[in-house]
Amino acid sequence: MPATQFDVLGIGNAIVDVIARTEDDFLIRHGMNKGTMALIDEPRAEAIYASMGPAIEVSGGSAANTIAGVASFGARAAFVGKVKDDELGRAFAHDIRAAGVAFDTPPASAGPSTARCYVLVTPDGERTMNTYLGAAQDLHPNDVDPDVVKGAAITYLEGYLWDPPHAKEAFRKAATIAHDAGRKVALTLSDAFCVGRYRDEFLNLMRSGAVDLIFANESELKSLYETADFDTAAAALRGDVRLAVVTRSEKGCVVVAGGKSEAVEAVPIDKLVDATGAGDLFAAGFLVGLARDRDHRTAARLGALAAAEVIQHLGARPETSLQDLARQNGLPI
Amino acid sequence: MPATQFDVLGIGNAIVDVIARTEDDFLIRHGMNKGTMALIDEPRAEAIYASMGPAIEVSGGSAANTIAGVASFGARAAFVGKVKDDELGRAFAHDIRAAGVAFDTPPASAGPSTARCYVLVTPDGERTMNTYLGAAQDLHPNDVDPDVVKGAAITYLEGYLWDPPHAKEAFRKAATIAHDAGRKVALTLSDAFCVGRYRDEFLNLMRSGAVDLIFANESELKSLYETADFDTAAAALRGDVRLAVVTRSEKGCVVVAGGKSEAVEAVPIDKLVDATGAGDLFAAGFLVGLARDRDHRTAARLGALAAAEVIQHLGARPETSLQDLARQNGLPI
Repeated sequence: MPATQFDVLGIGNAIVDVIARTEDDFLIRHGMNKGTMALIDEPRAEAIYASMGPAIEVSGGSAANTIAGVASFGARAAFVGKVKDDELGRAFAHDIRAAGVAFDTPPASAGPSTARCYVLVTPDGERTMNTYLGAAQDLHPNDVDPDVVKGAAITYLEGYLWDPPHAKEAFRKAATIAHDAGRKVALTLSDAFCVGRYRDEFLNLMRSGAVDLIFANESELKSLYETADFDTAAAALRGDVRLAVVTRSEKGCVVVAGGKSEAVEAVPIDKLVDATGAGDLFAAGFLVGLARDRDHRTAARLGALAAAEVIQHLGARPETSLQDLARQNGLPI
Repeated sequence: MPATQFDVLGIGNAIVDVIARTEDDFLIRHGMNKGTMALIDEPRAEAIYASMGPAIEVSGGSAANTIAGVASFGARAAFVGKVKDDELGRAFAHDIRAAGVAFDTPPASAGPSTARCYVLVTPDGERTMNTYLGAAQDLHPNDVDPDVVKGAAITYLEGYLWDPPHAKEAFRKAATIAHDAGRKVALTLSDAFCVGRYRDEFLNLMRSGAVDLIFANESELKSLYETADFDTAAAALRGDVRLAVVTRSEKGCVVVAGGKSEAVEAVPIDKLVDATGAGDLFAAGFLVGLARDRDHRTAARLGALAAAEVIQHLGARPETSLQDLARQNGLPI
């Protein structure tokens, strides 16, 4: 097999987060489902923005956050996602490139503006997200360069890609090219409501072998198998995919591999400031471990380390070098 | 005298901060003068942005930060400043209004984009600023509504207004209207290099009585009187203005009033994260105290409290209610 050019290629919605702190009653007044992601149209976006408090703008997007995390570990990273050629789009492109990620998807010159996610952070650190997909809807299979996919040890895809109309075609194209080149394909289930929208398609991807590795949190897993019982869902998962990691917040994670499960503990934190990006950054650490042929337990510890970093500040991308953090914790990359 | 509509009206450059952490050698490589503000043109702005790390965008502008702080104390606040009708301009307008500030300056529909300040924060928490003035250059005397000035107990102006061509005319107009209505006029000297550019004009404003209250930090004061000795500068200041406050970082501040000086201590902090906004928020607290007829010592303590809040996080606007903070510290507004 030819040498890899990238450790991880991510494909996802290119989004700028607009983050504000709020009280719980704001969520209730606006009919928001705490801790989840809702898709919104432009009028709803305008209405939410007009009523929310002073905000900061910071690059986000689930797979994009993961890939920024991969680069922060010192691994070779690439990203595919669609912005518009506007101020927020230029900020997104700057930020991901400045993080050390190869990002060459051409921006849209017409059509809707760069995608924005209005993130409301409540005093408990939980985040509630409202996404206006904008230009991210225009991600097209032509945006996927086959040579980049062939050169990536792992192609990582977000379940949210099922929302924009053509993005799932880009997803399928990338997965096929990756497997034909003998590379691995990973998928995050993204969100319990996203799983609710695309349950059958996600199960098909797993059972058909179109994806090799699944990331899910507890509520996504329960939604996938339509059960309230974690053990029931975990048992079903063991039969459906070769490798999966289920994250359980402060309870750590469970790695499901070859029909067996192994629990790995979380990394303790001082204070939960903003849960945004916890799952994204966990995936970053695990993917880096996997791409560098570490055992699953080590990969999960790298994931836990990255997740602990990102939830102790506002924003979903690392503020310190994850490579340094890993080294300080006896897990050199 | 008619009742006031606002406690404080601020007039300043409307700027969005683009903040990134960096190492000291980045400043040296780019010929930046640590801890100060440099004016840059668009090509230099592009070059700095292209070479700096991942950033967050957050509303800034010196007087605008002060006014957001005034509102956070629960006082009545208004702001005049010029943005363009672009994404960053809309973010600026949203953020200042969401902070509770009356902001009605119409955005420019043509011309340069909304002003940006590239803020580089070094590991010691010091900030080095590079400002592209953009649309802020188009602030015009017509943007100053005489009724708003007449209705404000204090009109607060930033020295940086001397940089854009017409803004100083807006400044002079506002100062004249305020004094004719029996209101107070305050000025911050803004930056030691800004003082270097406009030393004679600032001294004239003070000596002619066009301003009643001056805010300066130590280096601005030394620059004003072209001396390296603080006591020499402070003695000169006593003769030139009725009321002045000189901030001295962790050493607190000195209030100069009626030819006498009084030192007021700083509020201790856990960790200096980002010094951006320290002077702006000190001014907010002092102005609120003054507008509410507190004694100078109490006003200075309110300023110290607000400054301590803002330097313990990234960004130059308060993240917690300064009104609550003041109450918790026995200084109810």
